[in-house]
Amino acid sequence: MNQQPVDVNERDIIQSIERGFAVLLTFDAELPNPTLAEIAARTRYSRPAVRRILLTLQHLGYVVGTGTRWSLTPRVLTIGQHFAATHGIVEIAQPHLLRLAEATQESASLAQLDGIDVVYVARVQVRRVLSVAVDVGSRVPAHATSMGRVLSAWAPADQVAAVIDAGLPRLAEKTITDSVTFRQSLHDVRRQGYAVVESELEDGLLSASVPVWDAHGDVVAALAYSSTVVRITAERVVAEVVPLMLETSDAIRRDLAATPTTRQTLAPNSRDGFY
Amino acid sequence: MNQQPVDVNERDIIQSIERGFAVLLTFDAELPNPTLAEIAARTRYSRPAVRRILLTLQHLGYVVGTGTRWSLTPRVLTIGQHFAATHGIVEIAQPHLLRLAEATQESASLAQLDGIDVVYVARVQVRRVLSVAVDVGSRVPAHATSMGRVLSAWAPADQVAAVIDAGLPRLAEKTITDSVTFRQSLHDVRRQGYAVVESELEDGLLSASVPVWDAHGDVVAALAYSSTVVRITAERVVAEVVPLMLETSDAIRRDLAATPTTRQTLAPNSRDGFY
Repeated sequence: MNQQPVDVNERDIIQSIERGFAVLLTFDAELPNPTLAEIAARTRYSRPAVRRILLTLQHLGYVVGTGTRWSLTPRVLTIGQHFAATHGIVEIAQPHLLRLAEATQESASLAQLDGIDVVYVARVQVRRVLSVAVDVGSRVPAHATSMGRVLSAWAPADQVAAVIDAGLPRLAEKTITDSVTFRQSLHDVRRQGYAVVESELEDGLLSASVPVWDAHGDVVAALAYSSTVVRITAERVVAEVVPLMLETSDAIRRDLAATPTTRQTLAPNSRDGFY
Repeated sequence: MNQQPVDVNERDIIQSIERGFAVLLTFDAELPNPTLAEIAARTRYSRPAVRRILLTLQHLGYVVGTGTRWSLTPRVLTIGQHFAATHGIVEIAQPHLLRLAEATQESASLAQLDGIDVVYVARVQVRRVLSVAVDVGSRVPAHATSMGRVLSAWAPADQVAAVIDAGLPRLAEKTITDSVTFRQSLHDVRRQGYAVVESELEDGLLSASVPVWDAHGDVVAALAYSSTVVRITAERVVAEVVPLMLETSDAIRRDLAATPTTRQTLAPNSRDGFY
């Protein structure tokens, strides 16, 4: 996780690539089937520019225009599939997430940092009348989640500084909003080896996370359990769930160590992985 | 599903957007952490061109370069999340897939056509020692799968022609490889209302699919069940599993009809959907 990005010079940025992604990401819950004019208004690009970008994205199979409305095609899912195909941990963790979810009867997830957010990279959901689905690829703020707390605890100093500099906004009743308490919480997480966060992202939400280590001793992901105060207390999570999570994380670490870095199965379009 | 794509003129295509996606998709199981030179060799673009594209993608947060090697970041998963956010069926189907998977103790999926392939748009997996994970976004050939058979059965004629024109390649023992038998199988699927496919994609693989209809009477997805001949026979699938699947599909149709077209929950970055 201690990656030093390659320096980038402003003149190396290809503007039309940036605009292509901006148009693709305009499609969201608010604008699931936008018109060209709606995309132009949202992106502030000219209509002729948006038109050419849409025709290019359609040519590539990522969007389709019908009448005046445009929509995303399932091909956009293929892009995310390349993440799983190149990060063995996603597949390696899957059976472990399933076992954890079965044992706790709550959803189990794997998450990684992306800037000041946490992104779900794998998730096993347990059916509950009151639970809302969180898809792989969903983003949540790092500062107010147990996943973000664990990932920040072992992240380089500049990554922690970025999270703090974003202002630690209050999102729920108990969100930690000052940097001293936040840094102390990261220290506690490092000392304890896990994070339990209650009512910081949303009132009543209770989650626990532990780090997932690789063979080199780096934290490569957070393993998370998520429930609500209606179903369990923080004390019971620490006593009953965290030990299971630490075992699960350790099992993932062993499987990671036993797997060569190149992924063995499930290449997109390969004949493996059809079951 | 009867979408007529907007016509595209070759001079409207923005080449650098095309190249940006081509570089992003170079990262796969074979090249999880490619060097600039490896990407140039694979794409046949010049090294200076690949370098600028990589720096642009890094600027956008989709790749990160460390030393001479590059890798995808979890941000690429966000792109796929926009598909779920704009296609309500993905979330609506989730509890139904969970119920079906629980009842059958086999994985349940939702799939859509993308050209001559089928793409998994949602999936609930059941833990089995012998099963291999298929991620959302994975692609399988339409002609040799029950999902593809169902989606082709109700697809426009040109879509079926495209599948047949691709040659119906033999992939396993019982793959249908001639167009007359293939068209007959689509006719049977329309008459029966389901498809059961055995050993056509891979020897021993047994799957069943039924169409998912929306309120307008269009087939919007295939609902699939997948197992192996070791665990169940095609006859038992028809007698025991297909009726459950038809009920499930009908429940999804009712939920689709009851949901406004704009998705109610789970906007990326919204405060909903944190559970």
